[in-house]
Amino acid sequence: MEKKLIRVGITQGDLAGVGYEIILKTFADQTMCDMCIPVVYGMSRAALFYRNQLGLATNFTVVQSPAEAQPGRLNLINCSDEDIKISPGYGSAESGHAALVALQRAVEDMKQGNIDVLVTAPINKNQIHSDEFEFTGHTEYLQHELGEGKEALMILMSPVTKVALVTTHLPVSEIAKAITKERVERKIEIFNKSLNQDFTISMPRIAVLSLNPHAGDGGLLGKEEEEVIQPAIAEMQGRGVKCFGPYAADGFFGAGLYSRFDGVLAMYHDQGLAPFKALSGEDGVNFTAGLPIVRTSPDHGTAYDIAGKGEADENSFRQAVYVAIDVWINRQHDREAYANPMKIQELREHENRGSRREETLQV
Amino acid sequence: MEKKLIRVGITQGDLAGVGYEIILKTFADQTMCDMCIPVVYGMSRAALFYRNQLGLATNFTVVQSPAEAQPGRLNLINCSDEDIKISPGYGSAESGHAALVALQRAVEDMKQGNIDVLVTAPINKNQIHSDEFEFTGHTEYLQHELGEGKEALMILMSPVTKVALVTTHLPVSEIAKAITKERVERKIEIFNKSLNQDFTISMPRIAVLSLNPHAGDGGLLGKEEEEVIQPAIAEMQGRGVKCFGPYAADGFFGAGLYSRFDGVLAMYHDQGLAPFKALSGEDGVNFTAGLPIVRTSPDHGTAYDIAGKGEADENSFRQAVYVAIDVWINRQHDREAYANPMKIQELREHENRGSRREETLQV
Repeated sequence: MEKKLIRVGITQGDLAGVGYEIILKTFADQTMCDMCIPVVYGMSRAALFYRNQLGLATNFTVVQSPAEAQPGRLNLINCSDEDIKISPGYGSAESGHAALVALQRAVEDMKQGNIDVLVTAPINKNQIHSDEFEFTGHTEYLQHELGEGKEALMILMSPVTKVALVTTHLPVSEIAKAITKERVERKIEIFNKSLNQDFTISMPRIAVLSLNPHAGDGGLLGKEEEEVIQPAIAEMQGRGVKCFGPYAADGFFGAGLYSRFDGVLAMYHDQGLAPFKALSGEDGVNFTAGLPIVRTSPDHGTAYDIAGKGEADENSFRQAVYVAIDVWINRQHDREAYANPMKIQELREHENRGSRREETLQV
Repeated sequence: MEKKLIRVGITQGDLAGVGYEIILKTFADQTMCDMCIPVVYGMSRAALFYRNQLGLATNFTVVQSPAEAQPGRLNLINCSDEDIKISPGYGSAESGHAALVALQRAVEDMKQGNIDVLVTAPINKNQIHSDEFEFTGHTEYLQHELGEGKEALMILMSPVTKVALVTTHLPVSEIAKAITKERVERKIEIFNKSLNQDFTISMPRIAVLSLNPHAGDGGLLGKEEEEVIQPAIAEMQGRGVKCFGPYAADGFFGAGLYSRFDGVLAMYHDQGLAPFKALSGEDGVNFTAGLPIVRTSPDHGTAYDIAGKGEADENSFRQAVYVAIDVWINRQHDREAYANPMKIQELREHENRGSRREETLQV
């Protein structure tokens, strides 16, 4: 396969958060600039502000478009020249608007094929919310903008486990009615496909958590297990997916059962993410599965409380860059392997003519 | 203080679960029989069945009442002579009924003051449920039977942290409307008092989690934080309780913030217990705070899947015995310290007469 450096689009996130700190710290390491072509969608003023504020030495090159981006450098596209006051830790409509402008530009370049993958620094949903952004998070926005009708699945991953969510950014009062058989089935299907295609697990084993405590305790603590989740699991098993459950969340994590599965499907945000983060600490990455594009992010928020103090740990962001690149490569391999169904036929003909098998199977 | 061995009432739990296995394994250690007077409320047939089935050597003495219980022995009160078929792993109305009979007898003895503390082996809520037991768990039943009008608080504790729950065994669809300002305040108050009285923490620091993901994200993901939880925290702070929050559950556990607090108040079962058990593994103990009596249990269920196989880990049950004894002693000290408000007056008079301060302060 042709050696190609992957163009990694990076959005600056909320200007009052730790976005620039984790970006600049990550690309202070030259090997990070050499393994891909990083292109930050941001504001040079803000990048300089945080570079000085935090005493970081990371250099960057301002470019007009990804086509101009230089290998071996941290490239930055200036998405706005607005004179926004930068106040670390103090989110505002302005700091949120800056995040939106950068995100919109990156999405546009993604649509044009100018960048290969997207890594987003954290936004504050409250600050970015506006008439232009009526979404509860990146995941929902990107599904709308880049989904091509496909449904997104939020996966949180670390070396410990991968946890996906049936519902994401919903008030607790709205969770139960959002858990439908069709939705659970779709999420199992997307999860299964992603584990296979994006993470090269040939026959993934998926654990499905229950909605209610104690898996509903035979109906005493809710009927959704019997009426919705069990039928969905049975349906997907019938379609050949190795999915099991529903498991009560507390016992599942307490007994370490996650180590026996390739992925865990939780019914809602805190049920999956609280134990995931308890186990994964600062190593988690948020990956948006199911969409035609590849997008990752660190698994933490804007962290206003430590913004501008130099205390932010960039590890989750660095892992997010790695995962985006890995998934892109895995998808390429997957695509090439299945690109031409006639190859098997050709292969046989080649074999008949005594040619080498490797010639055709090579990717 | 007079040296007194504490009478620990132990209920057998569901006959098809791991109850007898963890009881017999715990009291196989003679030091456990020497540190208290253990009295099992159960069935000698069932105890013998599991003793043989699992090849355990633990002996027990059948007694008629706690008054007959012998120090240095595992005592057992035969609560029923019914000829119940014992099928490890296969819960039934019969295995649940056996749990109920034992629990009722233990509660009766607790009311009479015949036992000091109660440690319960796991029940299956579905099997024990009947006209006589219309509760979703031990906690709710014991509040009804032994609460004297007081409200119970479920605390899960381990060397890692203590997590208490505002709501316990509720379907997810009913959580949001059960989160009221008054309820959150009461739970903070009970938690604060328990940390102080039961665990001798003089000025406990309590973290309160949010109900909704991202602590409601400024109202975008739910209003309960602003309208219910924040006002409750403010109210309790005004009453001198060191409580803080609300914190988003995933970030709270991910950043390890629990290590900065004496207790964590979660809004519902899986939010608190999934990360708690992920962190605590097999070391957790369930303690029912707020009631006039002391009750603990292991933090796992009947574990039908491994019942009768000898695979159950008794550590959580052993810890539950320790905690029950510790809390009983702490409450005794607390009671004695505050037993006679006139003592200060007496003390002064003693001091005036030159008597020794220690004489009166001694507990």
